[in-house]
Amino acid sequence: MTVSQSDLVLDADAQDLLFRDARTANTFSDEPVTDEQVQAIYDLVKWAPTSMNQQPLRIVLLRSEEAKQRLLPHLMEGNRAKTEKAPLVAILAADTEFHENLPRVFPHSPGAKDIFADPGFREQNAKLNATLQTAYFFLGVRAAGLAVGPMTGLNAGGINAEFFPDGRQQTLVVANIGKPGENAWMERLPRLDYDEVVTTL
Amino acid sequence: MTVSQSDLVLDADAQDLLFRDARTANTFSDEPVTDEQVQAIYDLVKWAPTSMNQQPLRIVLLRSEEAKQRLLPHLMEGNRAKTEKAPLVAILAADTEFHENLPRVFPHSPGAKDIFADPGFREQNAKLNATLQTAYFFLGVRAAGLAVGPMTGLNAGGINAEFFPDGRQQTLVVANIGKPGENAWMERLPRLDYDEVVTTL
Repeated sequence: MTVSQSDLVLDADAQDLLFRDARTANTFSDEPVTDEQVQAIYDLVKWAPTSMNQQPLRIVLLRSEEAKQRLLPHLMEGNRAKTEKAPLVAILAADTEFHENLPRVFPHSPGAKDIFADPGFREQNAKLNATLQTAYFFLGVRAAGLAVGPMTGLNAGGINAEFFPDGRQQTLVVANIGKPGENAWMERLPRLDYDEVVTTL
Repeated sequence: MTVSQSDLVLDADAQDLLFRDARTANTFSDEPVTDEQVQAIYDLVKWAPTSMNQQPLRIVLLRSEEAKQRLLPHLMEGNRAKTEKAPLVAILAADTEFHENLPRVFPHSPGAKDIFADPGFREQNAKLNATLQTAYFFLGVRAAGLAVGPMTGLNAGGINAEFFPDGRQQTLVVANIGKPGENAWMERLPRLDYDEVVTTL
């Protein structure tokens, strides 16, 4: 089977920016990430799909030294120094009460909110869809010419207790954001072959 | 706060293709989706990040009538007719034994596989990272000029029993893929405001 870029419509520069050249960054330059950049990212990625337009992703941006210090003890030790130095740190979390917005964001289906009366089913939906939105957000960060350094080596329960004491939001991933610094990344790691991932029936 | 496209580096056509103009499709044209297109999509989105390069996403493409008929009873009734007519249907699933590949895809850390000895921790990682990859895949489908119709109204346990009887893979989402047909989508639904989603500390 021949694979060709001509099977894609997205132009090669955009492919490189979002996927081929983009890398997980472990160091960052001092250049700040502005609120305007984050808003432009959100205004792009908000259009990507979630089940029944749930939109459960919530983002806490840590800019102040004080806010970052509240996070660091809950990260795996190897993730602390790079997070302390990153221009911007984002906690990506799922809002388990997303269903309260459904009458407004899924207005043609008045009973939509009631489908999610069960807290377990709600949490499962919130996590699945907020994780999809987390991935959209990562690509949005790259669309803004920035690098993202996602981390799952963390104590989610500790972060939840510190930042979401009412229990409504659940931490999924923490991500450092900025322009890449010196020696920002490791060598490119191998990816699985198509035939290891895709089966056709 | 003023939001401007100039805060993004990704060109406007690519923004439209992936996010602004792209829509969840409910009807499709008869034009087939080729294996070459799916391979080009995979060869693009495989580069997007997962924790420790886990890459747990597995994709089952349903092309034959017979394969689709095995799926339909496990979809919510409202999703069956459109799935039956879609040129290509994909089951997106998480491989809970992804850790077996770590010695090959995360080779600088020989102990990586052992971190995931616990099946519960492994399943949690598999689902989180395969869900991130599912979102990358959706945007890859759009990068190929195709529309995607993701569905979570399904009986995951039923699909797992039918397609993954060894229990190794867990279904996350089913997605229809193709060129949009007539009346392919609903009116655009409202998105949450920036201030409802993002908090800065």
